[in-house]
Amino acid sequence: MKAAQFHGRGDIRVDQVEEPRCGKGQVKMRPAYVGICGSDLHEFTAGPVLIPEEPHAITGTKYPVTMGHEFSGIVEEVGEDVTRLSPGQRVAVRPTIFDRTCSACKMGLEYCCENIGFIGLSGYGGGMATHVVAPVEHFYLLPDTLSLEVAALIEPLAVAWHAVSISPFQAGDNVLVLGGGAVGIGVVQVLKLQGAKNIIVAELMENRKRLAQEFGATVIVDPREDDLTQTVRSITAGQGADIVFDAAGVESALNSAIPACRTHGTIVNIAVWEKQPAIRVNELMYSEIMYMGAALYDESAFVDVIEALNNGQLKPEKMITNKIKLDDVVEKGFEALVEHKDRHCKILVDVQAG
Amino acid sequence: MKAAQFHGRGDIRVDQVEEPRCGKGQVKMRPAYVGICGSDLHEFTAGPVLIPEEPHAITGTKYPVTMGHEFSGIVEEVGEDVTRLSPGQRVAVRPTIFDRTCSACKMGLEYCCENIGFIGLSGYGGGMATHVVAPVEHFYLLPDTLSLEVAALIEPLAVAWHAVSISPFQAGDNVLVLGGGAVGIGVVQVLKLQGAKNIIVAELMENRKRLAQEFGATVIVDPREDDLTQTVRSITAGQGADIVFDAAGVESALNSAIPACRTHGTIVNIAVWEKQPAIRVNELMYSEIMYMGAALYDESAFVDVIEALNNGQLKPEKMITNKIKLDDVVEKGFEALVEHKDRHCKILVDVQAG
Repeated sequence: MKAAQFHGRGDIRVDQVEEPRCGKGQVKMRPAYVGICGSDLHEFTAGPVLIPEEPHAITGTKYPVTMGHEFSGIVEEVGEDVTRLSPGQRVAVRPTIFDRTCSACKMGLEYCCENIGFIGLSGYGGGMATHVVAPVEHFYLLPDTLSLEVAALIEPLAVAWHAVSISPFQAGDNVLVLGGGAVGIGVVQVLKLQGAKNIIVAELMENRKRLAQEFGATVIVDPREDDLTQTVRSITAGQGADIVFDAAGVESALNSAIPACRTHGTIVNIAVWEKQPAIRVNELMYSEIMYMGAALYDESAFVDVIEALNNGQLKPEKMITNKIKLDDVVEKGFEALVEHKDRHCKILVDVQAG
Repeated sequence: MKAAQFHGRGDIRVDQVEEPRCGKGQVKMRPAYVGICGSDLHEFTAGPVLIPEEPHAITGTKYPVTMGHEFSGIVEEVGEDVTRLSPGQRVAVRPTIFDRTCSACKMGLEYCCENIGFIGLSGYGGGMATHVVAPVEHFYLLPDTLSLEVAALIEPLAVAWHAVSISPFQAGDNVLVLGGGAVGIGVVQVLKLQGAKNIIVAELMENRKRLAQEFGATVIVDPREDDLTQTVRSITAGQGADIVFDAAGVESALNSAIPACRTHGTIVNIAVWEKQPAIRVNELMYSEIMYMGAALYDESAFVDVIEALNNGQLKPEKMITNKIKLDDVVEKGFEALVEHKDRHCKILVDVQAG
């Protein structure tokens, strides 16, 4: 079968690989749409990062691996003992793989598993292939209302949903979001749905600014033009933002956000940092700001996003800025995202289009 | 009168200055014992830091200032309208000065005041003088059980008390304390009192290690000899510390403490950093660790420490490693602390001894 495989930094190829077989407790699926994630891009430009060079502790996978962990598709076959799904059903994939034995898993925090793996990075095959096989627990039945395109956005929206859920955010809060990429835009949507007062987005790029506004940002700040701290303070009657979500991972932005956050406020990191940031800890301390990390999503975030999409509370269609063929995934996908960062929010690979 | 004044970096002198007069709503006190704080030392070696070069927003003070903000003494005179204290009473001083108008003060978080000042750094006179005058609200009546020496430790113990109070610490938790200086030793005492399971202290210096152990540390780790992360993990059955208190402010120690902290654990910063640390944020994020700052203390921490000293729950006498005369404050105080860091935990100035 055809599969987009990672062979090393800058080296992703659409190869012919062996079609996987469906075993006991497994589901074989035909991927429909697969999103290209920031972490996929990071593997392409600076990887392998999460893609294992040595066999992964849980899955035994090492590269070359088939990419794609944000995806939807159609059940093709179910293995022995699988009763809750049947061929022809439309599903989305929750790609996280846990060892269930580490101290995080034992605490019930499997999504923080010390050996965490991902379908499409470190386990089984990924979605950028005409077929994929994985244990049944990874597959979620889609309501009829959801298109397969939108279903490919469930995973990145779950990241945003979870980040808001574990933060102390309450309706009526003033919020600052650093970065208007796919995750930042996801956070804006969840905040709007949950009743944020001001949603201030700090972003440099024009298309991202526009998209953030379309999705509900009330104020856009370009930190090159306006002082971020002063702008946030003036919008919030001098107090500062109740919560900051950092979906940018830029040291100067984070350090400007600290004095823009109120006393006893919270900064939630969702960004993956390429370099450890030197943080203004003294200011964090004097204002007793809580700096917390939000990693991935638990099952409830995934299920809640499906429900919010089903009842029309989330309408993320405009995040999809292009749909491309699997054969074009390098040129029109990875390379386009590197070269024209501002043109795109989420590019979907239409796998069955060839 | 005699007063130890800060004139600039490395320049503290015992001067003759005008004796202050007691005005309306004020108290005039004869300081008895004054602790030399890490922040005093920081002013001496790298200041002015908190000592204002321009008139302070609340007090109008700028250097030269009389130092000393950890102190006890005897009420000498009370001004008009002061009814709750009278001459001859023994008191301790809560040195924090608030503007009561900033957004933090308006939220009821005066101790996080954006213009915060300190008696002995940025306001009125300090304790290292034969007399001091300040508004009555700064003075707390001492129970008869408390010696004036121990009363000079209330302020630094309140810092430790507050840090534990605002953290999610619960009895039975495993705790890692970075640094066995006066604040770290204070945290150890509060943790022991409140029922911590393992109190692991990371420290390099021999006397500090011994003192930490005397005050209740169950394990001492010297990160030069043993891997901090591995040691904490092995003590905590692989899970990691529930809470980390950083009273060291050393980048490498903080970054070793991140993987030593459990999933969904908390790291509380009490350290004042000389340089912004480059923090392993990705690891904080994947383990969803909360990194929070603890600034100073609110009034309840100050009152709770007095009560815990009164009923014998805290017995901090061994923290006092020397008592010196005011005339010797530079040589036997500041310089001794710089040159023989490990010999001392808390040096008290016996002001009335001359």
